[in-house]
Amino acid sequence: MRVVVDAMGTDDFPAPDVEGAVLAARDFGDPIVLVGDEAAIKRELSKHNTTGLTIDIVHASEVITMEDKPAVVGKAKPNSSMHVGMNLVKNGQADAFVSMGNTGAALSIALLNTLRRIPGVKRPALTGILPMANKPILTDVGANADCRPEWLAQFAIMGSMYAQATAGVSNPRVGLLSNGEEEGKGNDLIRESARLIEQLPLRFVGNVEPKDVLKGAVDVVVMDGFVGNIFIKTLEAGTSALTDAIRTELMASLTSKLGAALARPAFRRVRKQIDPFEIGGAPLLGINGVVIIGHGRSSAIAVRNGVRQARAAVQGRVIETIREGIAKMPSLSDD
Amino acid sequence: MRVVVDAMGTDDFPAPDVEGAVLAARDFGDPIVLVGDEAAIKRELSKHNTTGLTIDIVHASEVITMEDKPAVVGKAKPNSSMHVGMNLVKNGQADAFVSMGNTGAALSIALLNTLRRIPGVKRPALTGILPMANKPILTDVGANADCRPEWLAQFAIMGSMYAQATAGVSNPRVGLLSNGEEEGKGNDLIRESARLIEQLPLRFVGNVEPKDVLKGAVDVVVMDGFVGNIFIKTLEAGTSALTDAIRTELMASLTSKLGAALARPAFRRVRKQIDPFEIGGAPLLGINGVVIIGHGRSSAIAVRNGVRQARAAVQGRVIETIREGIAKMPSLSDD
Repeated sequence: MRVVVDAMGTDDFPAPDVEGAVLAARDFGDPIVLVGDEAAIKRELSKHNTTGLTIDIVHASEVITMEDKPAVVGKAKPNSSMHVGMNLVKNGQADAFVSMGNTGAALSIALLNTLRRIPGVKRPALTGILPMANKPILTDVGANADCRPEWLAQFAIMGSMYAQATAGVSNPRVGLLSNGEEEGKGNDLIRESARLIEQLPLRFVGNVEPKDVLKGAVDVVVMDGFVGNIFIKTLEAGTSALTDAIRTELMASLTSKLGAALARPAFRRVRKQIDPFEIGGAPLLGINGVVIIGHGRSSAIAVRNGVRQARAAVQGRVIETIREGIAKMPSLSDD
Repeated sequence: MRVVVDAMGTDDFPAPDVEGAVLAARDFGDPIVLVGDEAAIKRELSKHNTTGLTIDIVHASEVITMEDKPAVVGKAKPNSSMHVGMNLVKNGQADAFVSMGNTGAALSIALLNTLRRIPGVKRPALTGILPMANKPILTDVGANADCRPEWLAQFAIMGSMYAQATAGVSNPRVGLLSNGEEEGKGNDLIRESARLIEQLPLRFVGNVEPKDVLKGAVDVVVMDGFVGNIFIKTLEAGTSALTDAIRTELMASLTSKLGAALARPAFRRVRKQIDPFEIGGAPLLGINGVVIIGHGRSSAIAVRNGVRQARAAVQGRVIETIREGIAKMPSLSDD
């Protein structure tokens, strides 16, 4: 298996990206392709011991930044590392693409310029893998702010197949995020989507509330991209505000400072439990190829774990499975 | 000023409700009316020293539970403590009503059976007051799962006036919760609502993300009831999951247990900072009278603080101000 790593992805590219690629090549024992500025990659690679590792370099002359607008980036920077890397996958020269770069740009380039969508997929979705509880897959977390019920039904199918293929869950539980568990709760979109998802060949557990998600009650959480984005950002902001408050109060007295020092290993274990870098990245669902996107602030370890995620998706034959699942999907009348 | 306290509100009614009323009468020095089962209230009152306090009892023969369906409760239990208490406000015999009971039922009884809506208000809203950062008012948090832009514009007006009247903020900053701060971000509802709110005589700061809310960037957060409900439930579930993880890890070793013991006062200060019982309750906005609803698990202190919230609303002349604000609101074409 050959996984392509975008060397120009993280905010501090190419250092964490290249180091992560080296770690991945060493830990997983398969070739890695680094795509990006060749000179910069070589300079970075020379800092690491790569003896016995197969790390190829494919040059790409342009870099996509976090400031680039997804809507125009596809045509504005046709030689970006994202274009070049995804085309390697498209042309069968590699099996998956991993980037810690601009998520919106990656989706746009995947959808419009390179890999394109899996036939029958109405709208691809951004996903996240929650770094809490049973690490459920969350979809959509931002690609589609206004959704139709049929799109959510497809997110349910794709999410279910992804969870099954990568997380070793044999019959993933799929829930719709709502403001109440009872049938009939939710807004118009939720009620209509539930009606459609009930007809699908997957394990739909109905509406779930945020607390259910955090208790591990589902493996896949289906949401429209607006709500999904608010959900992940609220979790992040809430846990971060609480962490800050605890830190401030612990530092406020000598006694509590001592207490904090004694409790440091416990705090470290908590941080590791909810560390998104342990996940590495999450897939663009509905794209006709494995593309894993992680956070711009990713460390080398996160990049390495993004490659692990990509490998699981390839090994689980996610794309083929979704392709078949979407083709077999009953026609859901929706508009 | 006379505030009515629902004696049958909390999950453990009437003990916390009655004790909270006693605390309020003592701390604020004004008469309190307890509404509910007279015998039960008298029995509960006898446990407290009420010398010098004016606590009146008004009997109500029915009790609304958390299981009662908001849609039918108005007619099914016409002699409930909520009906009786709100009618005291409606008839001018009291200034405000405070209950820790079923929020949906309270809204339904207020809107359809007793106080009714302020003229011109399209849809009343549930609110929450975030027990974090600068304690912003959140609206809607669950009454209207499918909203029109004009309703959100009215939530912005009412929330702004409530914050101004009760929180001593002279020109409250109003934000629309969205998946990005930039203009043009959001879904169709957000973009259209922003266009309407910009035309209103209030301090609209545009789109805000969850992290901005938690950093105290706004005094009022406007959302549709579906998103608002997900927002507050996600915050609650996320902080609770993190707290549980910390507690578990702290208890996992003797050293960290000792650390936790030393840090206990610091943890207690954090808990107090984010304690919803310090807030007590939040208003039903758009109802033609001050109604404050708190959590069913409320303590006596929370009930007392709910009365404090009601007093601030009455003293700030919130209802009159909203009435004038809605009457003066430019006609926002929205169908």
